Amino acid sequence: MMIGLIGCGTVGRGLLELLTEKSTVLARKYNFKPTIVAISDPKVGSIYSKEGLDVKEILSLLEKDGNIKNYRGVVTGWDSIKTIKESNADTIVEATSTNLETGEPGLTFIRTALKNGKNVATTNKGPIALAYRELRNLALSNECELRFEGSVLAGTPVINLFQSTLRGIEIKEVRGILNGTTNYILTKMESGMSYKEALKEAKEKGYAEAKSDVDVKGWDAVAKIIIIANVLMEGNVNIIEVERRGIDSISEEEFQRALKDNKHWKLIARAKRVDGKIKASVVPEALPDHDLLSKITGVTNAINFKTDVLGDVTISGPGAGRRETGFALLSDLIDINSRKEGKCQP
Amino acid sequence: MMIGLIGCGTVGRGLLELLTEKSTVLARKYNFKPTIVAISDPKVGSIYSKEGLDVKEILSLLEKDGNIKNYRGVVTGWDSIKTIKESNADTIVEATSTNLETGEPGLTFIRTALKNGKNVATTNKGPIALAYRELRNLALSNECELRFEGSVLAGTPVINLFQSTLRGIEIKEVRGILNGTTNYILTKMESGMSYKEALKEAKEKGYAEAKSDVDVKGWDAVAKIIIIANVLMEGNVNIIEVERRGIDSISEEEFQRALKDNKHWKLIARAKRVDGKIKASVVPEALPDHDLLSKITGVTNAINFKTDVLGDVTISGPGAGRRETGFALLSDLIDINSRKEGKCQP
Repeated sequence: MMIGLIGCGTVGRGLLELLTEKSTVLARKYNFKPTIVAISDPKVGSIYSKEGLDVKEILSLLEKDGNIKNYRGVVTGWDSIKTIKESNADTIVEATSTNLETGEPGLTFIRTALKNGKNVATTNKGPIALAYRELRNLALSNECELRFEGSVLAGTPVINLFQSTLRGIEIKEVRGILNGTTNYILTKMESGMSYKEALKEAKEKGYAEAKSDVDVKGWDAVAKIIIIANVLMEGNVNIIEVERRGIDSISEEEFQRALKDNKHWKLIARAKRVDGKIKASVVPEALPDHDLLSKITGVTNAINFKTDVLGDVTISGPGAGRRETGFALLSDLIDINSRKEGKCQP
Repeated sequence: MMIGLIGCGTVGRGLLELLTEKSTVLARKYNFKPTIVAISDPKVGSIYSKEGLDVKEILSLLEKDGNIKNYRGVVTGWDSIKTIKESNADTIVEATSTNLETGEPGLTFIRTALKNGKNVATTNKGPIALAYRELRNLALSNECELRFEGSVLAGTPVINLFQSTLRGIEIKEVRGILNGTTNYILTKMESGMSYKEALKEAKEKGYAEAKSDVDVKGWDAVAKIIIIANVLMEGNVNIIEVERRGIDSISEEEFQRALKDNKHWKLIARAKRVDGKIKASVVPEALPDHDLLSKITGVTNAINFKTDVLGDVTISGPGAGRRETGFALLSDLIDINSRKEGKCQP
């Protein structure tokens, strides 16, 4: 597998670290020996070598200089589109930052890759939330793979949980804590912090962005529940159809009343089939203490699926993080590789 | 895919039901159109047709007569070994009952199938707990698949969760509620029932066998933690090395004290790497209320995995049931089929 990495920020670097650290075990257990042939990032720099790049050298440059502009002896300066089209990469890792309004620039990068018959693994919520059907059809007609485990709950299996291991099951309803930042804030508020203090601490710890609306007003969770609804429940939900209320809508009085009643406020994303159509929402709810989701604290995420054959299945795990999200890409890449080989498991 | 079904009890019937009910969606979404060519069961009867059997007719006979002896126009009377060796099945579903001392008769059936180059999907804990390494090596050397999702937590993904979607991760420690019967009894005891009453009710509901020692003394959970340790943690744990204490060892006083302290008794199976070796145990523990596993009630099962990259990942779902376990076989079969085809996901 020849990989072109488009976007080399936190997540891209997480993937490069894991590929280096785990190279021996990946080769031994899964015959997975990928070559990184290109990296293109407007800030970090763009390099290309059809024989492959030295990932350890790249990580050391990123550590030292914060960029890869001093990597020598290769083609430099190709932009992302040229890298996707003209490099010998057969698989594009798209790890640019999320834009929930336009999906760009990731959307164009993914379209270009698929049209050129290249597999895509992405962690970018925007393109998948906004254009899943178009992209899936592009992948099918070009006989290549489109993978996006990392768009929901980082490396905690959600998309692949159903597309690889629970195939044939029908999801009736989904209920989840899909945003770690807001869950961290709510957990801190339970231990006595004010909303403002908790938000400030979340920002200091790097969980919340300076512009925290994407998290606290529920937009991030909206993107994720759309992906779950459209991919795993065959829905066709549009971002404007999702009922949305942020955690900033919970009053101090409501919060205190829940505490007294031994209930726990959580930002709950839901998707449910109603009259043949999927209805999705992201709304804070005070959950009773016996509800498994009420015990999910801090930045941890969790999803409860109501299914036809298995009844309730719940998974919890990290929802963000450099290596946690980089791992989502890694697991997608290993699976693309082994499916192409038609190999037995493991 | 041509399937031979060895053992047609509860679980085998669950699989046949799902194959019938879901045939349209399985064909459409996964190009999965299996043919059942043989069924062999000493009680239910043995039939074989290389062109394929009529599954609806079989289910109706099972419903009406409790056996398939009136199925007409096919070869009858082949025993399981002859069926495995001489039928045109390329894949054997082994769903005979579990024996934790010898693994038989399943162990011989699985060995025979693999030696004859036939894929195996089984729900049988015995052969996997007792002889995983031998069977895995047989599968590898004969280039066929050995799948056993249903040996742990029925259709709730555990084995395939790691072998398909979390490949490349390292499990540091496992902690789980792996037996539904004991968890049901402990849940009932929390609501005021005595151990004896709760056990009686579990038997009445069909959760516990008449001989309930396999559950209450922890043997069932021992088999499952061995499978997890040996398959997912590359251990080599033997059944006699596992520390084991049943729920019948909890005194009334201990139980009441936990209730007062807001703790919850659970039968906890553990596996952990200690000095390069896996140490496994099945012991009742009183878990604090904030522990996710303390909220797992009734017959539901759950496992918490401590991993290198993702930290804590927890999955919960059903641990038993006709259709729930039949679904484990179905998911294994779909994956065997799509890997053999080398097809893109989904």
